[in-house]
Amino acid sequence: MAGNSILLAAVSLLSACQQSYFAFQVGRARLKYKIMPPAVSGSPEFDRIFRAQQNSVEFYPAFMITLWMAGWYFNQVFATCLGLLYIYARHQYFWGYSEAANKRMTGFRLGLGILALLAILGALGIANSFLDEYLDLNVAKKLRHF
Amino acid sequence: MAGNSILLAAVSLLSACQQSYFAFQVGRARLKYKIMPPAVSGSPEFDRIFRAQQNSVEFYPAFMITLWMAGWYFNQVFATCLGLLYIYARHQYFWGYSEAANKRMTGFRLGLGILALLAILGALGIANSFLDEYLDLNVAKKLRHF
Amino acid sequence: MAGNSILLAAVSLLSACQQSYFAFQVGRARLKYKIMPPAVSGSPEFDRIFRAQQNSVEFYPAFMITLWMAGWYFNQVFATCLGLLYIYARHQYFWGYSEAANKRMTGFRLGLGILALLAILGALGIANSFLDEYLDLNVAKKLRHF
Repeated sequence: MAGNSILLAAVSLLSACQQSYFAFQVGRARLKYKIMPPAVSGSPEFDRIFRAQQNSVEFYPAFMITLWMAGWYFNQVFATCLGLLYIYARHQYFWGYSEAANKRMTGFRLGLGILALLAILGALGIANSFLDEYLDLNVAKKLRHF
Repeated sequence: MAGNSILLAAVSLLSACQQSYFAFQVGRARLKYKIMPPAVSGSPEFDRIFRAQQNSVEFYPAFMITLWMAGWYFNQVFATCLGLLYIYARHQYFWGYSEAANKRMTGFRLGLGILALLAILGALGIANSFLDEYLDLNVAKKLRHF
Repeated sequence: MAGNSILLAAVSLLSACQQSYFAFQVGRARLKYKIMPPAVSGSPEFDRIFRAQQNSVEFYPAFMITLWMAGWYFNQVFATCLGLLYIYARHQYFWGYSEAANKRMTGFRLGLGILALLAILGALGIANSFLDEYLDLNVAKKLRHF
């Protein structure tokens, strides 16, 4: 397990650092715009940064699940590349949103597309493993055979 | 690992899709009730849908942890069935809440009960594995012996 | 996998219970300060408890990822101890915050420090495994050799 998940582990750790970095930016924005806790609103600039971080938090568990499932059941290297791309998309989203609400869309759509692709790859891999284990039918092997 | 977690993987992927679906519904409600980002409030209908999604986000990591622990250490098939039931409970909760605040309780209570059950099964399984590995005492085997 | 992750599994399950406990406290505060869903604001006491729980939710996935990566790739027992310390730090944070906004800092800083330490240990462990597997270079073994 530990041996054949190194790349997934590295991407996961990197994305956990990104999540902490976003949280840190919210803390900085609190000081800059003087929004004292527990308030979470008060200046449009702060609101945008806060929502950008909140949205990243909301999507983070779904990203982790689809990343690991695609990596375990489809292909680790491919899932890792998509994972790195997702981290880049979230970076774009966060900084775009912090500038203006409509600048968030490019990064958001890219991230959503990657998430959908990871989910599809994961589903294909799981379906293949399922057929292989329970029905003794390896589709991937048969496809390669043709 | 990958081989004996297929069912858990499938349920996890399904629930990640459900999470994305809830997020998508919030996006649709934004358009419908004209709540422009970064605002997260403004119409009671939107507020309910937003809170329903936020609550699902809050409980999602705890659900994933208890599902996988119960599946790894207790029984995969049983944990998978409970996981599917949890997804159904969240579905009920989300649509109930989006109609009226007091209609959220049925789905919420069912979900909470399943979560508690998964946590208990996980704890039992972990305790048994722990005794087995560190004290060489397999309670499950002894129970079966009687 | 299941065999050599028992301690990580136990800490994860414990922290999932803590998350549910925080959510339960928010529910109790709703009744106490009469904040009816879907409202999430209205009394400073409720606001603090709600933000304390929200912040714990935000950091939870990053905690899980760094805990498991440090446990798998560095050392399980050490990661488990840090995990228990993190749960304690969050406990302090939550109850400190629920009393006064400035009482949250002790627990928050301790939690953040533990998270950083787990991330560093995880990164070291992953880097070592990576060098070992792809470049056939085991740094940890060589260090022990000196």
